[in-house]
Amino acid sequence: MTADPLRVALAGLGTVGGGVVRLLDANRELIERRAGRAIEIVAVSARDRSKDRGVDIARFAWVDDTARLAGHPDIDVVVELIGGSDGPALALARATLEAGKSLITANKALLAHHGLELAEAAEAAGVALKFEAAVAGGVPVIKGLRDGAAANRIDRVYGILNGTCNFILTKMEAEGRDFADVLAEAQALGFAEADPSFDIDGVDAAHKLSILASLSFGTRPAFADVQSSGIRQILAADIAEAAALGYRVRLVGVAEAGPNGLFQRVHPHLVAADDPLAHVSGALNAVVAEGNFVGRLLFQGAGAGDGPTASAVVADLIDIARGEFGPPYAMPAASLSALAPADSGERRGRAYLRFMVADKVGVLAEIAAAMRDAGVSIESLMQRGANGDGSVLVAIVTHEGPERAVAHALDKLRGSSSLAGDPLWMHIL
Amino acid sequence: MTADPLRVALAGLGTVGGGVVRLLDANRELIERRAGRAIEIVAVSARDRSKDRGVDIARFAWVDDTARLAGHPDIDVVVELIGGSDGPALALARATLEAGKSLITANKALLAHHGLELAEAAEAAGVALKFEAAVAGGVPVIKGLRDGAAANRIDRVYGILNGTCNFILTKMEAEGRDFADVLAEAQALGFAEADPSFDIDGVDAAHKLSILASLSFGTRPAFADVQSSGIRQILAADIAEAAALGYRVRLVGVAEAGPNGLFQRVHPHLVAADDPLAHVSGALNAVVAEGNFVGRLLFQGAGAGDGPTASAVVADLIDIARGEFGPPYAMPAASLSALAPADSGERRGRAYLRFMVADKVGVLAEIAAAMRDAGVSIESLMQRGANGDGSVLVAIVTHEGPERAVAHALDKLRGSSSLAGDPLWMHIL
Repeated sequence: MTADPLRVALAGLGTVGGGVVRLLDANRELIERRAGRAIEIVAVSARDRSKDRGVDIARFAWVDDTARLAGHPDIDVVVELIGGSDGPALALARATLEAGKSLITANKALLAHHGLELAEAAEAAGVALKFEAAVAGGVPVIKGLRDGAAANRIDRVYGILNGTCNFILTKMEAEGRDFADVLAEAQALGFAEADPSFDIDGVDAAHKLSILASLSFGTRPAFADVQSSGIRQILAADIAEAAALGYRVRLVGVAEAGPNGLFQRVHPHLVAADDPLAHVSGALNAVVAEGNFVGRLLFQGAGAGDGPTASAVVADLIDIARGEFGPPYAMPAASLSALAPADSGERRGRAYLRFMVADKVGVLAEIAAAMRDAGVSIESLMQRGANGDGSVLVAIVTHEGPERAVAHALDKLRGSSSLAGDPLWMHIL
Repeated sequence: MTADPLRVALAGLGTVGGGVVRLLDANRELIERRAGRAIEIVAVSARDRSKDRGVDIARFAWVDDTARLAGHPDIDVVVELIGGSDGPALALARATLEAGKSLITANKALLAHHGLELAEAAEAAGVALKFEAAVAGGVPVIKGLRDGAAANRIDRVYGILNGTCNFILTKMEAEGRDFADVLAEAQALGFAEADPSFDIDGVDAAHKLSILASLSFGTRPAFADVQSSGIRQILAADIAEAAALGYRVRLVGVAEAGPNGLFQRVHPHLVAADDPLAHVSGALNAVVAEGNFVGRLLFQGAGAGDGPTASAVVADLIDIARGEFGPPYAMPAASLSALAPADSGERRGRAYLRFMVADKVGVLAEIAAAMRDAGVSIESLMQRGANGDGSVLVAIVTHEGPERAVAHALDKLRGSSSLAGDPLWMHIL
């Protein structure tokens, strides 16, 4: 244990950066006791020096050119809170590791796209690359997988990885409102971005899932292979149908590794009321890891916000201060296996399918025939009376069967004049 | 990173010990990749050498006298799975640390009684003392507090810490059966010990709570100050009353540190249906930690069993193999503060009080008068018709108020000829 403080450079002083400054101020003495040494911010960089952030940054050295933080002589660690998969964040990350400094990042997009390269660079330099804050905000699931579950072969990891989507879905559920309406409110409240597509189209969750998969399975990050879709299509009526069947609707990221390859998917799912994910509401995040000895572990907490995210960033700083870090993906990057993507058509499961159809003779027969011809067995079918626009909702739950058959049935119906809009396909977890 | 294997001596070859052997066999290659070196059992000791454990132990050196494992020349770590707060477990623990070897234990009783002494010995010797398996079985909550939540001042930690009690309570809840009946079934199934008092009287949960409190608050272990009671008194009728009010009954350990001192209590609680603990059923364990930046973190999983407990033990072995361990309580034992026990009479809360009373005139008036005289304000009162034995159940929910007043009211009623047996007091979480 050394008495030298760990010297930190902070790049990006938005919500999370401000939170990191406040946390290190508020819990300074406690952190020093736990880390065995002080943790001190030495230099900062951000776009606007004069902006009022509610924290005193005049005591830190200011660096105009963010990329030059890496070369600052008096620092041990750079904390990257800029965001974006490329550009200044990537330039800073590379420069930091090249300079032999440790790197902490909350940037899931950066890791999803460049994680392997950065891990190799960190290992070559013998420094840390830590990213607890990049997945599930304040929930220490990266450490949970790297350390807590380390003795297990993980067969499956899944979770609710996007707080914005979960906030919207649980509000739709509680208030019976439709997606667009709740999204507008979430934006007004600051729970959703002005351009929400990264969140609501599942891209953010897919970034995070690819990180969890690598760490869980010892496989190379394979973001390009994540199948993802979002929650724009979901109606209040879908949530009500799911509830009538005993399910809740959640955007769930699921990854599995097995003899068929690496399966990674972010998709709206029907979650049974007795699944731990069914009780994850509002902006919470939760991750379940299934290990071959430990069984099912659940990690749950705040998925975003300045305090929780700062908590994760500073936990990584404490690890580095303690000298407790190994390879970023829990094993040497060179030993990560390159697993081919699994063919999801081979997966077996139950599905929820919803169609908006014209209120005319023969539509149900057309849908039923497509199911039959594709070999999809129907467990239940509900048809609900016409909306104001004359369309009718048909919701089907299938028996367990291969996903290929469902995809085939939906292909048969594509372009049918009986259908108003695309059908919605949700998997049953 | 060294290529030398980590050499392990295993003391105790019961369910968990057998699980550790099986786990290290099954996941050998994966563990070596994650730990950076092999982990190998070298020597074992147990009461009966010839017992069939379903695992091959002939390949390990056998040591008859368990205490001599510590002196075995070829080992780095002793794993103590003997159990008991004193006797052979304590002797082995002391001998191991004195010999400058690291110690892993799943023994919560040992830690509750001797944790501080053992932590000081480990720090003096510069070796590890790790105990992930001692609390919540396979759930990595020790690491979650030490590492994941390390940046936070923890104000409160609480959880479901005894799987036997939770199994019994959730079975009573699901099937409407009484305690004694379900306990007998749990014993027959092997979910409860032949002598179940450590579990059902709350002692086991109190051991675990005292460990969580130390780690969360940076306070000295203070098992003697844990107030604890168990679940023997709980009737199916109590669970039904709680359900009618929107609550579930759980044995919850709660610890708080604050200006009033250290509060530690294990007690049956009414848990609101929207609390994460309400959905913890069967033999699961769960721990919630509330941090000043991260908010509420939940860790949940299997609280017992050979696989989950072995997972926790081997995760500790991996930490040691990686060289990632610091002081056992996350900060030097000398810096742990000695906090006086808080006066629970000062605590404010709502209470569930249940009386079995004689079916005669004036009983309700007597109870109501005792409440009034003690200053306890009644929110609701339910009286249910006579049992076969002529007694009547009266259940009261109080408004929020000081616990002192409730204790005072119950004192006033003590010995009253109107009451059949002791009243039951459950706190509302």
